[in-house]
Amino acid sequence: MDLNWTPQQNMLLRMVGEFTDNEIAPYDMQIDRDGKYPAGLFQKLVDTGFLGLMLPKEYGGAAFDPEITAEVIRRMAVGNASAAVTLEGHYKTLDQIIKFGTQRLKDDYLPTATKRIFAFSMTESTGGSNPLGIQTTAKRSGNGWILNGNKIMITNGGLAEVYCVLVKTAPEELSVFVVDKDMPGFSFGKQEDFIGLRGVPVGEIVLSDVHVDNDHLLGKVGDGPMLGDSAHDDARILMGAALTGIMEHALQVATDYAKERKALSTPIGQLQSIQRKLADITMGKETTKLLYQRAAALKLAGRPYSEEATMTKAYGSRTAVAACDDALQVLAGYGYSREYPLAHLMMDARAMEIAEGTVEKMRGQIATAELAK
Amino acid sequence: MDLNWTPQQNMLLRMVGEFTDNEIAPYDMQIDRDGKYPAGLFQKLVDTGFLGLMLPKEYGGAAFDPEITAEVIRRMAVGNASAAVTLEGHYKTLDQIIKFGTQRLKDDYLPTATKRIFAFSMTESTGGSNPLGIQTTAKRSGNGWILNGNKIMITNGGLAEVYCVLVKTAPEELSVFVVDKDMPGFSFGKQEDFIGLRGVPVGEIVLSDVHVDNDHLLGKVGDGPMLGDSAHDDARILMGAALTGIMEHALQVATDYAKERKALSTPIGQLQSIQRKLADITMGKETTKLLYQRAAALKLAGRPYSEEATMTKAYGSRTAVAACDDALQVLAGYGYSREYPLAHLMMDARAMEIAEGTVEKMRGQIATAELAK
Amino acid sequence: MDLNWTPQQNMLLRMVGEFTDNEIAPYDMQIDRDGKYPAGLFQKLVDTGFLGLMLPKEYGGAAFDPEITAEVIRRMAVGNASAAVTLEGHYKTLDQIIKFGTQRLKDDYLPTATKRIFAFSMTESTGGSNPLGIQTTAKRSGNGWILNGNKIMITNGGLAEVYCVLVKTAPEELSVFVVDKDMPGFSFGKQEDFIGLRGVPVGEIVLSDVHVDNDHLLGKVGDGPMLGDSAHDDARILMGAALTGIMEHALQVATDYAKERKALSTPIGQLQSIQRKLADITMGKETTKLLYQRAAALKLAGRPYSEEATMTKAYGSRTAVAACDDALQVLAGYGYSREYPLAHLMMDARAMEIAEGTVEKMRGQIATAELAK
Amino acid sequence: MDLNWTPQQNMLLRMVGEFTDNEIAPYDMQIDRDGKYPAGLFQKLVDTGFLGLMLPKEYGGAAFDPEITAEVIRRMAVGNASAAVTLEGHYKTLDQIIKFGTQRLKDDYLPTATKRIFAFSMTESTGGSNPLGIQTTAKRSGNGWILNGNKIMITNGGLAEVYCVLVKTAPEELSVFVVDKDMPGFSFGKQEDFIGLRGVPVGEIVLSDVHVDNDHLLGKVGDGPMLGDSAHDDARILMGAALTGIMEHALQVATDYAKERKALSTPIGQLQSIQRKLADITMGKETTKLLYQRAAALKLAGRPYSEEATMTKAYGSRTAVAACDDALQVLAGYGYSREYPLAHLMMDARAMEIAEGTVEKMRGQIATAELAK
Repeated sequence: MDLNWTPQQNMLLRMVGEFTDNEIAPYDMQIDRDGKYPAGLFQKLVDTGFLGLMLPKEYGGAAFDPEITAEVIRRMAVGNASAAVTLEGHYKTLDQIIKFGTQRLKDDYLPTATKRIFAFSMTESTGGSNPLGIQTTAKRSGNGWILNGNKIMITNGGLAEVYCVLVKTAPEELSVFVVDKDMPGFSFGKQEDFIGLRGVPVGEIVLSDVHVDNDHLLGKVGDGPMLGDSAHDDARILMGAALTGIMEHALQVATDYAKERKALSTPIGQLQSIQRKLADITMGKETTKLLYQRAAALKLAGRPYSEEATMTKAYGSRTAVAACDDALQVLAGYGYSREYPLAHLMMDARAMEIAEGTVEKMRGQIATAELAK
Repeated sequence: MDLNWTPQQNMLLRMVGEFTDNEIAPYDMQIDRDGKYPAGLFQKLVDTGFLGLMLPKEYGGAAFDPEITAEVIRRMAVGNASAAVTLEGHYKTLDQIIKFGTQRLKDDYLPTATKRIFAFSMTESTGGSNPLGIQTTAKRSGNGWILNGNKIMITNGGLAEVYCVLVKTAPEELSVFVVDKDMPGFSFGKQEDFIGLRGVPVGEIVLSDVHVDNDHLLGKVGDGPMLGDSAHDDARILMGAALTGIMEHALQVATDYAKERKALSTPIGQLQSIQRKLADITMGKETTKLLYQRAAALKLAGRPYSEEATMTKAYGSRTAVAACDDALQVLAGYGYSREYPLAHLMMDARAMEIAEGTVEKMRGQIATAELAK
Repeated sequence: MDLNWTPQQNMLLRMVGEFTDNEIAPYDMQIDRDGKYPAGLFQKLVDTGFLGLMLPKEYGGAAFDPEITAEVIRRMAVGNASAAVTLEGHYKTLDQIIKFGTQRLKDDYLPTATKRIFAFSMTESTGGSNPLGIQTTAKRSGNGWILNGNKIMITNGGLAEVYCVLVKTAPEELSVFVVDKDMPGFSFGKQEDFIGLRGVPVGEIVLSDVHVDNDHLLGKVGDGPMLGDSAHDDARILMGAALTGIMEHALQVATDYAKERKALSTPIGQLQSIQRKLADITMGKETTKLLYQRAAALKLAGRPYSEEATMTKAYGSRTAVAACDDALQVLAGYGYSREYPLAHLMMDARAMEIAEGTVEKMRGQIATAELAK
Repeated sequence: MDLNWTPQQNMLLRMVGEFTDNEIAPYDMQIDRDGKYPAGLFQKLVDTGFLGLMLPKEYGGAAFDPEITAEVIRRMAVGNASAAVTLEGHYKTLDQIIKFGTQRLKDDYLPTATKRIFAFSMTESTGGSNPLGIQTTAKRSGNGWILNGNKIMITNGGLAEVYCVLVKTAPEELSVFVVDKDMPGFSFGKQEDFIGLRGVPVGEIVLSDVHVDNDHLLGKVGDGPMLGDSAHDDARILMGAALTGIMEHALQVATDYAKERKALSTPIGQLQSIQRKLADITMGKETTKLLYQRAAALKLAGRPYSEEATMTKAYGSRTAVAACDDALQVLAGYGYSREYPLAHLMMDARAMEIAEGTVEKMRGQIATAELAK
């Protein structure tokens, strides 16, 4: 069941639909092929106001709530999942600054978030999901901190201009600081060449004696793991929405083909083997949609949503990969061709079994939550 | 997210919880072992008013809506799935009479539905899901009809006193009539010995020159297939609720065990292989719950819910069987014992991959709905 | 591809086929219902010489090799899996005594193995797969040992007359002794009521100051874990054979039904949804067969077979449960009835995801073997 | 269990191993990236004698049997699956000419097969697995035939110089002719850009009034469907071998990583979630290997092997895709990178759920074979 949107929200959704259909969807195949957005697309996202969509009004944003934000992500992902994930990475980072930043940091930085991408970086080469493998350090220096180290595989890394970085402030203490690409000592490192979500830049940042003020600490010293979890939770809702959009895209391609293509004189959509796939894709899409809508509704209501957000991505990612695989098989040889989007949709979805916490790690979190009940 | 219930609905849910915990759950293992309800249980269901739960007030019912009715079914199924399914079979039949019965039929029959079980019967030995395999006939006779034939595998068959029966009124025309067990020519046939939902009587009725008035025709002549679909849809929402209750039961048993049982000195709940199962059961339970809640909400809102109801049972039944299998494996040797409920929960859930339309048939319906969009 | 049997082996297989078809298969449903073998069946197994099938000639056996022994188990399991598993439990125990027993123990005990069932017992209430959870002890006493403790969930427990028991000989030292039910201090305890393989008695033995000579030690003190692994390996090959027999039985029932049953006027065997299931059952049966044949061939050739035996049961058990579930669905309502064997076949197969090492534990063993390569 | 090879076969396998390790494996990633073989590789395959591997000696071949031929394919696929599939497409075509060609055709063409690739082409844009959708025609003309039409998605299309083409010789009659790229009227059409097996050229041929002698008819007029099935069967065995090689490659990458990579201080190979994947990959690899070895043994023995060959590819393709997906997840972020081969291995394997008959079609063939027993 679609949610009941306000007139303003409906207007937003119409605009997103048009923007996606005109500015994003036509470049879907090109983005996958080139491994980058077409020139000008990012500026159009900025100009249309997407970067400030969920930002509070006091910082120049449009202040849309978590439910409609997720809906925007889903709608855009039908056109191209990378674009949706670039926004997701930005929004989840803003969420953490809004929740845990000092007022001064917020006043300084958030107004720039309508023009600049913000990113959250946890992974290092010694471990993505293992906080104690973190080698990047922050050491006190005057009334600030000096940061050193490399963070890798950052969503929007290279494109983003502001980074929340997880660092060691003591041997067993992790904290998060906000750094700006214009700070002395900040530089970009290796860009990844990933198999899916190929529009999203994923890259490394290198911090060499980067100095930040105390205001750039998010939350308190030692809050790193909590902040990482919080960022994961906010990301996972929107990833569920992006996965739903991917499945919607795959279903559309598969049903269109199943209506046209004939085996002997019958459309293949009447074959049980095809119907099974179309039904499974549909059920996967709908269950994932219900999961992200529920998590977003809990977030909007100010209730706990961590387990629900985690389920959304854990369930949605595996389901979307299977759905795209089914859709590919509906088209058989054509599904296997680079002229059709199904292989790249499958690989786009595949990212989300890994990014923001692997499926295995998420299952552990869900089980732990259940055992604590 | 739990729905927001009214005080009256909350009172109902508390009562259902207490009734289930005191009168049903303690007999869960016994019901499976004996293949029938303990003496007196059915009367208690009647006395507590469960049979009239969703019946309009003008017929003596409590007029609860589809959302809360599904919630009652889920809650009761946590105690014992058979009891929940016996009510489901009754409710879905009442739904058809309310929607399609003549006023006179409703006035005559519905007030008795608070004391008597009503059942809907489609299957014959020549086909459950193949309407044209129907051999039972109704032939016009005066201002009524004469019915002849056997209907088998009827949920609540033998327990129910009123039956909606799908019959042939012309070579390619199916219609539904309401018959009463007290009518001359009505008798009971073979009772099935099924592997799960063992409390639910499933049996045959035999019609030998049973005469019914015109008022006993549901809808119009030829409405049989539409009525069958309508009954399926209403049943499928409640079956989704029952499946959610089964998974809730299984998860409870598995988490309790995983907290207590140790491998070496560690509770097994800390093992990844156990956590994977607990997480998958949880996700299966939650997705099925969201599906039935959505279908019920659509029904309450007067919007189409056929595809959504079908997804609920198609998805929920396979998922619940897998969830119970996972829970069984958590308990290993104990899960394999008849002293624990997991095997019977798995078999209870297994019924719903078959009853009210096989998973295969439902997938065809979902695909057909998508292809028509 | 069927193996090339010798004339003597072919004669054995013919005899096993006839015995199964005449003496075992007709009681398949009854065995499941009653939870025990029909009176006289066990004696017929003895009289026909099945207990000594793989026993060396010097002890009165027929000295058949591992390949043909597995084939006998598969063939018998087509008739009834319990009977096959009762023999499997006996054979795997004899294997350990043959490999690790003192000559005196072998001379004393093995000649009785053509009339008496031997069993291997590892599990205690504190852990089936956790050797250090073992509470049963053996303490030196003169030139022998005094055994105390309870072993549970023993395959053929109650029926078997000789037991290899895993006990603690020091705080971190496990050893195996052979005890006879006629020894003073030996008694039987609780019999399990399991959901499948219902012919196989599974029960407890209680040892109260049971005295055994040094000759009754299998292998050396401390060999317990190695002996347990060895028994598992020998059992797993034969369980793969039993699982293949179960799938063969399920496939037979499903294909027979699919040939007869019509939807409209077409046999359902022409439906893609049915064909998918029949094909998957067939592939599951054949792959499991190839796995056990390979493990048996390696054993016969005197080459390592532990990983291959483990794969046989780990793969075969999950596959057989899925295959029986598919076959059940082919029969739909009839598959769900206790009048057809499919539910019990599914539950028979389900045992082998747990017994002789859970699927989870076996996966760990396979992965460990691969990582060591 | 490895088969027992003769000294000559062992020498061949050593040579294949060295050739693969030195000439093929180093280009695995490059082949996927470039979508073509490196310059010179094809000539090295020719020079080393691979094209004539299974060709009878009278035509200049090495006359290796089906078992060792499959082993060669597996071994080469560990290095790069495309190279193995290019050979597979050639061998399966030679098999048909050897079995069904006139002596004159064989004398004329087979001696060139040590230098030139032969291909078998069935698919047209109106249907790959639907023979009656064939539009290409052959019409009698003097003592020969005139061929017209387009064949698409031909394995090795563009690289191959000789093509067996399935054409219509009468409205419901399909036949196969051998055409040479040097014949007047023969031209190449569109080359496909596929997502996997990117070294294998897949393309179209266009026949415009191509004249062939009667000798170029394979088998008899009307033998088209039988010849197509025969080609499928021979291809499927070798595809099973290629799939096994792919899984071997994926397992190697995953185990290497699991030994090195640490979570905290423990190698991740000790985590249950990793072990589960390694075990499942291992079991998938081994079962597929046993299936192709059996089919090849049946072929060598002159016994029917159609159902067994079909199982090999139907089972092996799905299993290999899942195995590569598991291996990708073991490496997490690195698995998702184009610097590691896992995504392309998954896509290489994915081809074989479609090429030479979809999984759905193969399941139908297996079920039909079982129902006929």
